[in-house]
Amino acid sequence: MAIPQVALLLTGNELMSGDTVDSNSALIATHLGDAGLEVGEKCTVGDDPIKLHAALDRLTRSYPAVVINGGLGPTRDDLTSEVAADLAGRGLVQHPEALIHVENWCARRRITPNPANLKQAMLPEGCTLINNPLGSALGYAMDINNSLVLTTPGVPAELSAMLEELVQRLAAQMGGESRHILRLQTFGIGESSVEERVKQFGADWPDEVTLGFRAGMPQLELKLSVASEANRREQERARALLNQAFGDHILGEGDSRLAAQLQSVLRERGQSMTTAESCTGGLIASMMTREPGSSAVFGAGFVTYANTAKRDQLGVPEAVLAEHGAVSEPVVKAMLLGALSRSGADIGIAVSGIAGPDGGTDDKPVGTVWLAWGTPQDLRTHCTVVSGSRQLFQNIIAAAGIDLIRRHLLDLPPLPHYFLRQA
Amino acid sequence: MAIPQVALLLTGNELMSGDTVDSNSALIATHLGDAGLEVGEKCTVGDDPIKLHAALDRLTRSYPAVVINGGLGPTRDDLTSEVAADLAGRGLVQHPEALIHVENWCARRRITPNPANLKQAMLPEGCTLINNPLGSALGYAMDINNSLVLTTPGVPAELSAMLEELVQRLAAQMGGESRHILRLQTFGIGESSVEERVKQFGADWPDEVTLGFRAGMPQLELKLSVASEANRREQERARALLNQAFGDHILGEGDSRLAAQLQSVLRERGQSMTTAESCTGGLIASMMTREPGSSAVFGAGFVTYANTAKRDQLGVPEAVLAEHGAVSEPVVKAMLLGALSRSGADIGIAVSGIAGPDGGTDDKPVGTVWLAWGTPQDLRTHCTVVSGSRQLFQNIIAAAGIDLIRRHLLDLPPLPHYFLRQA
Repeated sequence: MAIPQVALLLTGNELMSGDTVDSNSALIATHLGDAGLEVGEKCTVGDDPIKLHAALDRLTRSYPAVVINGGLGPTRDDLTSEVAADLAGRGLVQHPEALIHVENWCARRRITPNPANLKQAMLPEGCTLINNPLGSALGYAMDINNSLVLTTPGVPAELSAMLEELVQRLAAQMGGESRHILRLQTFGIGESSVEERVKQFGADWPDEVTLGFRAGMPQLELKLSVASEANRREQERARALLNQAFGDHILGEGDSRLAAQLQSVLRERGQSMTTAESCTGGLIASMMTREPGSSAVFGAGFVTYANTAKRDQLGVPEAVLAEHGAVSEPVVKAMLLGALSRSGADIGIAVSGIAGPDGGTDDKPVGTVWLAWGTPQDLRTHCTVVSGSRQLFQNIIAAAGIDLIRRHLLDLPPLPHYFLRQA
Repeated sequence: MAIPQVALLLTGNELMSGDTVDSNSALIATHLGDAGLEVGEKCTVGDDPIKLHAALDRLTRSYPAVVINGGLGPTRDDLTSEVAADLAGRGLVQHPEALIHVENWCARRRITPNPANLKQAMLPEGCTLINNPLGSALGYAMDINNSLVLTTPGVPAELSAMLEELVQRLAAQMGGESRHILRLQTFGIGESSVEERVKQFGADWPDEVTLGFRAGMPQLELKLSVASEANRREQERARALLNQAFGDHILGEGDSRLAAQLQSVLRERGQSMTTAESCTGGLIASMMTREPGSSAVFGAGFVTYANTAKRDQLGVPEAVLAEHGAVSEPVVKAMLLGALSRSGADIGIAVSGIAGPDGGTDDKPVGTVWLAWGTPQDLRTHCTVVSGSRQLFQNIIAAAGIDLIRRHLLDLPPLPHYFLRQA
């Protein structure tokens, strides 16, 4: 059976100028894929009513369903509702439920709805709403040229919050047979390493299982896809092979995030952690506290950028700083011990490095970083060099810092692939 | 004069499945924009000859030029040359220069060209080559339906290396006059507020100036675009109107970022700042230290999530915590004063709030936050409620925290639009 195809129509001048990289269509496509639907064509136009009209007309005549993304905002540039209503031969009317939604949205912000806000309640007559739990722009469904048209806002977080309802509506209308996908989140391995290894498995790797990747930052998602429930055994066999090869790099299934995984490991053990950050400047603390429930496992963090802060906040001896320099093993050890004793946390991570672009020397080039992690009884250190921009350096080191605590708590090999490769 | 428009046709199954986020089209669009050309439409299809054929036929009939990205590789999935030749009514022939290119490419890798490699030298008859200094896939130019068609490979680095030649060819054929764009970075105002206000300017707003927006998080970019150098005066008049209305929300021109702006204001004054963060968990410190050069103005930050950390790290009296609760004016005041005295910084920001999703009460719902900022001599506080996800709450409050210090140092109105609107 052919896989039912949906068209995507994206709109917004920022998508045409190159100001915005479109990640929304990949998000929509991934969710459709999981429901056994496929994107047949993507078309992107600016905030131009004539082009939008032509594109929507063409796509609705060619596909049984069209998802529109963007153009639902409050400004004059936002033309989706106007064009959709026009093509359907309907008017724009004030939608009572949408009005309540907009009014509530404004009330939560303690603002009075202005005409721009109220424009978002003017929708094509007869459409049915798709709830937007985060923003003021509701999505909706309607029929145009006998095609099911679903509109969604361009703000990624809002789109994301609406995708489940969107996909349900599409699947209900179009059928589609879900492929059975097992998603594994990993940290610290690259696509090419995994592909190389899978090649080496040879005939052991089951033919029924397709391996896919989705590169996220800092994680890499592996997708093990099979056609039907009947292939679950093969899927599990493939998972076992990957586990054998990369088990300690696999964080978990589904959407497992590094910080959330560490939080749950800490929670299970009733332990808490702390951070002593120089070059990452609070990023590790921030990643940990972005996850709900972090207060149970994270009470205090130290951002000690200056040497005086390392001394005053963490008790790193002046002499150690003077003798070894801030980017050194003795200093990260002292930072970690200071953070542990002053916070009362059970385990911690300390980092000191040269994020760049300035500050490097022949001896310690930009990208050099010392890490110390663990407990006073079981303290480990490592030095590595990460090349790339300042932001990339910070992202990688912060993620590695979280991963090192996870490895420590789970008694996994302390030095992961991403460090060993450099050895 | 209307800006000449180019269509982009992107091809590849990985773009349809959502496994790859397309950044190539933004790269192409940015380069075209700099040359005074515009992308009129983007169309993306998978490796499907029928769809590719239909899309290329349609776009070449609608646009004077079409850039194709992808489908030039060595595998059977790569269909661009086959489809382009077919639409032009030509054959695929072995192109002598392309053959040399492929042979050299293989020789550098010490491999013998296989049939897949040689396929990349089979190009539509009569096309002219576009050099690819990095990869085996050459691009080329040809005429289809009286439209100039240019092909490029999907590998981003290879595309990037070919863009200069590509854009030169397009500009030579199509003309194109660079538009003069003035970009202003703002924080704390929304598109709808700006549009409302511009409407109120009425005839004062110069017709020659087009106002555009680019929503970034947490900033909003305003783009004042005029057709030519001769309209610079009108552009400046529009800027003056915006300055009058929203001057204190304008961070600067070009790519000015909030944290970088604060850094340069601190630098000019030879001052340093500190952070005392509860609900933002290190995000403010992290935003400040992502900017190169932050060590000159940021020495220490405190992540005091737990009450014990507020007490031990910042000296917030136990009694104040007990009497008023962690989310209160006396506590953020004490946090700020503690951070200032312990870090020796000149100015600081302290935040304590309920990021959610749990922890709210009737009295202090999720999203409630107290901020204190300034110096011991000139300390200000404010309470606000931000609704939205935990991450959104943290992003908004962290950005506001940075903005409040900027305002304080620059003697701008202490309460910005985003707080006043709620009053």
